[in-house]
Amino acid sequence: MSLASPVSETRSRRADDQRRRILDAAVACFARSGFHAASMQQICAEAGMSPGALYRYFPSKDSLIEAIVERDRADVPELLAPLLEAEDVVGALVEAGVRFMSGALQPDGMPIYAELCAEAVRNPHIHAINQRCEREIHDLLTRVVRRGQALGQIDPALDPVEAVRLLSALADGLATRLALEPDADLSGLTPVFERAVRRFLAAQTEPGQ
Amino acid sequence: MSLASPVSETRSRRADDQRRRILDAAVACFARSGFHAASMQQICAEAGMSPGALYRYFPSKDSLIEAIVERDRADVPELLAPLLEAEDVVGALVEAGVRFMSGALQPDGMPIYAELCAEAVRNPHIHAINQRCEREIHDLLTRVVRRGQALGQIDPALDPVEAVRLLSALADGLATRLALEPDADLSGLTPVFERAVRRFLAAQTEPGQ
Repeated sequence: MSLASPVSETRSRRADDQRRRILDAAVACFARSGFHAASMQQICAEAGMSPGALYRYFPSKDSLIEAIVERDRADVPELLAPLLEAEDVVGALVEAGVRFMSGALQPDGMPIYAELCAEAVRNPHIHAINQRCEREIHDLLTRVVRRGQALGQIDPALDPVEAVRLLSALADGLATRLALEPDADLSGLTPVFERAVRRFLAAQTEPGQ
Repeated sequence: MSLASPVSETRSRRADDQRRRILDAAVACFARSGFHAASMQQICAEAGMSPGALYRYFPSKDSLIEAIVERDRADVPELLAPLLEAEDVVGALVEAGVRFMSGALQPDGMPIYAELCAEAVRNPHIHAINQRCEREIHDLLTRVVRRGQALGQIDPALDPVEAVRLLSALADGLATRLALEPDADLSGLTPVFERAVRRFLAAQTEPGQ
């Protein structure tokens, strides 16, 4: 890092800012019109940028989608890593879920979550990117579940990989709900969500309860 | 019914067949290219029909989407009504979920589930249709949960409406998974799904267990 000149550092920070501005504009346009109906021209207008400048960073819509997914994925380890150090593993998992539902822990790409799934279904390239990012999140969560089992907080009889699949399906479903009803009142759902996760992860027999 | 002449009955059966053929063709085209990229011409070709014939039944893409959602919805009461008479309510709910995951109990519109969610997010007309159909399913499932509570099989402390929201989110998430990985091996997920649903619905203290 110390080898980089101040000039090249400024330049790279400026490039990061430009990329962020374009990706935010793309998310807004894709959310409004969908991937296919949104044009590169609309994204340029939303970002306040010339087509030449935009194409220098992103040559195609697919490259924009890829960068949006990658940006969300890049945030995940930072957001979920604390789960690997939590004293109360199950409590931390529940809290992460509740923070996700409340909007405090949502990826920048959330407004196009449904659109992304739809595109991943029919576009093998986007499907592969999505799979790669999902695998990373699943691997991290599987380590969290294994750690909870080692600490005696999660049922050791539970298959960690399948448990994460189930919890991910639940999170996907909540994300679908949030995408369809961004203003929904989720206060009633929160305790029910906590109940579902705690009971799912608890050991078979709970002495004293 | 006895008032209808054989000729008009034959005509209406033929109209039903035509509608079904068009909707199947539309699902195939939408799954392949998405709502926006799929053209009415492609749907005509897939259905082996002239544009004139197709437009007589469906004047627009929105009317096709509406009819696809409506067709799925029309099947739901028949598919889920047995839950209202099951002796083992929780077992029947689990079984319905497993049959859904295995493909035995999936709506015809399943291949465009992700596409539909994406369209519902940005198209208020499709959103309203989707909401109406969802409400019908939620109402039916809420009656199922209330019945399970009355029979002492489901925790009476559970809010039936919120419980259905949670179960629906889980089903939505599994549907997203199925749409993204139609050939995924779900055999490992099935027992984990059953565990999650049974424990979620069970009364707080389970004497003798």
